[in-house]
Amino acid sequence: MSHPHPELGAPPSVPDGGLRVTPLGGLGEIGRNMTVFEYNGRLLIVDCGVLFPEEEQPGIDLILPDFSSIRDRLDDIEAIVLTHGHEDHIGGVPYLLREKKDIPLVGSKLTLALIEAKLQEHRIRPYTLEVREGQREQFGPFDCEFVSVNHSIPDALAVAIRTGAGMAVHTGDFKMDQLPLDGRLTDLRAFARLGEEGIDLLLSDSTNAEVPGFVAPEREISGVLRQVFAAADKRIIVASFASHVHRIQQIVDAAYENGRRIAFVGRSMVRNMGIARELGYLKVPPGLVVDVKALADLPDEQVVLVCTGSQGEPMAALSRMANRDHQIRITPGDTVILASSLIPGNENAVYRVINGLTRWGAHVVHKGNAKVHVSGHASAGELLYFYNICRPKNLMPVHGEWRHLRANAELGAKTGVPPENIVIAEDGVTVDLVDGRARISGKVRAGYVYVDGLSVGDVTEANLKDRRILGDEGIVSVFVVVDSSTGKVVNGPTVHSRGSGIDEADFAAVVPKIEEAFARSAQDGVVDPHQLQQLVRRTVGKWVSDTYRRRPMIMPVVVDV
Amino acid sequence: MSHPHPELGAPPSVPDGGLRVTPLGGLGEIGRNMTVFEYNGRLLIVDCGVLFPEEEQPGIDLILPDFSSIRDRLDDIEAIVLTHGHEDHIGGVPYLLREKKDIPLVGSKLTLALIEAKLQEHRIRPYTLEVREGQREQFGPFDCEFVSVNHSIPDALAVAIRTGAGMAVHTGDFKMDQLPLDGRLTDLRAFARLGEEGIDLLLSDSTNAEVPGFVAPEREISGVLRQVFAAADKRIIVASFASHVHRIQQIVDAAYENGRRIAFVGRSMVRNMGIARELGYLKVPPGLVVDVKALADLPDEQVVLVCTGSQGEPMAALSRMANRDHQIRITPGDTVILASSLIPGNENAVYRVINGLTRWGAHVVHKGNAKVHVSGHASAGELLYFYNICRPKNLMPVHGEWRHLRANAELGAKTGVPPENIVIAEDGVTVDLVDGRARISGKVRAGYVYVDGLSVGDVTEANLKDRRILGDEGIVSVFVVVDSSTGKVVNGPTVHSRGSGIDEADFAAVVPKIEEAFARSAQDGVVDPHQLQQLVRRTVGKWVSDTYRRRPMIMPVVVDV
Repeated sequence: MSHPHPELGAPPSVPDGGLRVTPLGGLGEIGRNMTVFEYNGRLLIVDCGVLFPEEEQPGIDLILPDFSSIRDRLDDIEAIVLTHGHEDHIGGVPYLLREKKDIPLVGSKLTLALIEAKLQEHRIRPYTLEVREGQREQFGPFDCEFVSVNHSIPDALAVAIRTGAGMAVHTGDFKMDQLPLDGRLTDLRAFARLGEEGIDLLLSDSTNAEVPGFVAPEREISGVLRQVFAAADKRIIVASFASHVHRIQQIVDAAYENGRRIAFVGRSMVRNMGIARELGYLKVPPGLVVDVKALADLPDEQVVLVCTGSQGEPMAALSRMANRDHQIRITPGDTVILASSLIPGNENAVYRVINGLTRWGAHVVHKGNAKVHVSGHASAGELLYFYNICRPKNLMPVHGEWRHLRANAELGAKTGVPPENIVIAEDGVTVDLVDGRARISGKVRAGYVYVDGLSVGDVTEANLKDRRILGDEGIVSVFVVVDSSTGKVVNGPTVHSRGSGIDEADFAAVVPKIEEAFARSAQDGVVDPHQLQQLVRRTVGKWVSDTYRRRPMIMPVVVDV
Repeated sequence: MSHPHPELGAPPSVPDGGLRVTPLGGLGEIGRNMTVFEYNGRLLIVDCGVLFPEEEQPGIDLILPDFSSIRDRLDDIEAIVLTHGHEDHIGGVPYLLREKKDIPLVGSKLTLALIEAKLQEHRIRPYTLEVREGQREQFGPFDCEFVSVNHSIPDALAVAIRTGAGMAVHTGDFKMDQLPLDGRLTDLRAFARLGEEGIDLLLSDSTNAEVPGFVAPEREISGVLRQVFAAADKRIIVASFASHVHRIQQIVDAAYENGRRIAFVGRSMVRNMGIARELGYLKVPPGLVVDVKALADLPDEQVVLVCTGSQGEPMAALSRMANRDHQIRITPGDTVILASSLIPGNENAVYRVINGLTRWGAHVVHKGNAKVHVSGHASAGELLYFYNICRPKNLMPVHGEWRHLRANAELGAKTGVPPENIVIAEDGVTVDLVDGRARISGKVRAGYVYVDGLSVGDVTEANLKDRRILGDEGIVSVFVVVDSSTGKVVNGPTVHSRGSGIDEADFAAVVPKIEEAFARSAQDGVVDPHQLQQLVRRTVGKWVSDTYRRRPMIMPVVVDV
């Protein structure tokens, strides 16, 4: 298996007749999926998603792929193919279209409806081409065939991209539920046909490659929901992902069977379920869904609320209910169902919500104590089937952290993909398909681009390092006014502190030390404010460290009057 | 079941002949376990542990129980009984002994050895009484009998406390491995005998009450370790908890069987394994353990390193190996085993380490892909056995977040404990056992006490709020020197920023706005520096919010010359 060398340089230009594949996101992380295909000077982009920040990126709203390697080639882009409507596949589109509004978007009906709703918030009306499974479309030199795949959102597609270099297949996100609610399978017959023709490069979802076995069918959840609904004699509140139409469908069905009405709560839930109903993906008996205000008039045993917040997001409805900061007040006997996964990193936030709800007397049903969630990504057992059907000549695991990519590569090798034809790449690494063989050729910029408030890309790693220090240790600021002609202190030192845990009055002890240091440096003829600032930093830093064994940020300002 | 009312007041004095139980930690969280028993004016403490901070408590080293409710009663304390040697049960002892050095510590041989080593670092030599299972000791009015329990550290004890109010039993942490490595069972025969006599109040470990079924025996791990060891042809690096003697014993045995030598790495691992060997808890064939330096002379296939860092702690050996910041350099073919749990909240840090190790070519075996860990706490199935054997008259779940306490209470109810005799308390809630019935009587202070560097209790919730704002948004400081007689600006405004993601040069745009605001307020006769500071805060805050849609902390300082 080939791995990228840590010191890879810029790639040479694409060899004649070769296909270059450059992942700009999603390889080395779960999120911001984006892959650029280049053939004969033209580009095709598959997906353009966002990554949600972890605690290492404090204060950040979203993380985007770095567009800098394609920024001066926007006119070469034939289209952006969107495999499905999840944020980690479409969330970056508004930011790319800001740079060039008329790049066509290609996707299924639901996917386009979701991205159009999002683009409306950014006041962008995109050019779109709706496609469906079985359809074949030419975008410049890229001959694209779309194949249905099953995932945790309806209407997901894989794409087979034929060029003069051969056929590349990108799975998008997929699993292989053999009894999907909507009957829409991952089309293994189509993949078998593509495999017969010859898949030269397969880019395949790695998210669950470490998980042995098979994902249980989505419909198994309905049995559990039925039990919980039957046992509940007060309100039922269900939190789930706002795009998981099939999960919500099962909740709708359970509510209907139990004579309950449903209200959707939360902006994204209301919007997405509106779209899904309108387009026929969510089927709701007439009169079942009511406005949240109308619930107040119904007895508790006829109420179901469906809301967001299953990941413990502090501003979402569920967290606010747990904190008694929402119009819906949890009372003993209410049942709350978290019908969702627990995304790594969110554990503390989710458990905080569960504890809060429990404390108010709710009975909380979640992944940890009932089968109320199945994953949307193929496990190892499914991937083995898939590789045996596709028999790719070259394999490039995508969508995952290193551990997932590596596990997926090993599954491919087990099914007979020659190890030398398996490429574990990472974000920015260019992979060239030439003469039927995929090889790493170089590396382009693919760093994190941070969205924070209105700004995109202004927040730097240095800023985040400062935030981490400020957040862990707080800050001590010291202001001094000096007369630079004499070096004498005219006013101050004035010491303020935030978050250091040191009482501001206690800094009185360091003031004489600063004054002494200034006096000594004045004797030595040092009166430059910049040098005096360094002196303040050292003096205060040492005192705090010696006295409290802590290292707050020291911010000295010496001005001269 | 009784729950504490949110507006509970201070409890009345303890009724004559009653026993008061006050949990000062461990109820509402996993950690800082501490329970105070009061009878006839005298106190007995069971455990005094620390809690490790989450991301909500940035920069904090440790969280202690709040001792304020017993601070003026230190002379009434008969003893501190330590159930076992884990940090969340003994880590707070040095801080309590700082307030009164001669409170006797009571515990088993290993527990006392571990707390003595810890106290040595704090330069405290404690008074101790070593006890063992079956032993009975009187501490003032408290007649204590010790019962062996099985846990993830050897030599753990439960304690039955007889007073005139009846018998209270505190389990400490326990599970019920029926084939423990050292043959030391949770002594169900003793619990049956106590149950026959009559357990008036049972305080029982809730950590795994939500988990159905039974914990697998610790010894099942050895089969998995054997397989991994047999398959490895280069170095093996095992990360585990530094106190998990039986886990380490199995690694020692596997190393011995495979002709490998072992070195311990990391201060706490070296210290604890030294103690465990010396006292006979860890059995090591002569010559098997070598110094880490001696490993360099051995071929890779004869090497085992046992280190800390299984929770992704950034300064521990394993994280540093993953970052290539350690003398041990991971190379392709090395096997790394994380033989440990994954404590909620540590997921991202642990996965970061696994990804780093994988990237350097290591094969990483962990809880997610192999059975290399079993829990130390009884699951629901075990708790049912336990309650059916003990048949307590009153039950008080301890050691857990709300969801765990509630689940444990429900298990008790299922086995026949009358619901009105089950008390779900939380930290600080006083529970009085009077006339054979446990009732909530009030609430004492039990907030978080933060250890940060050398200081204990100085860091407040307000400081942490400041840290969270600073960490998410950064800070903007504005310094202005005015002549207060005229309100004219003499120097400045000088604007600095850290972590805001806004270029300092860009603040030039807000300087005229501050100057305008000052000019207007001078016209209105407002020249007080404090009022001018508020003006700066509003002006800069509004400008940043309008321009960048962000809310950094604004720190204005207006001084007067």
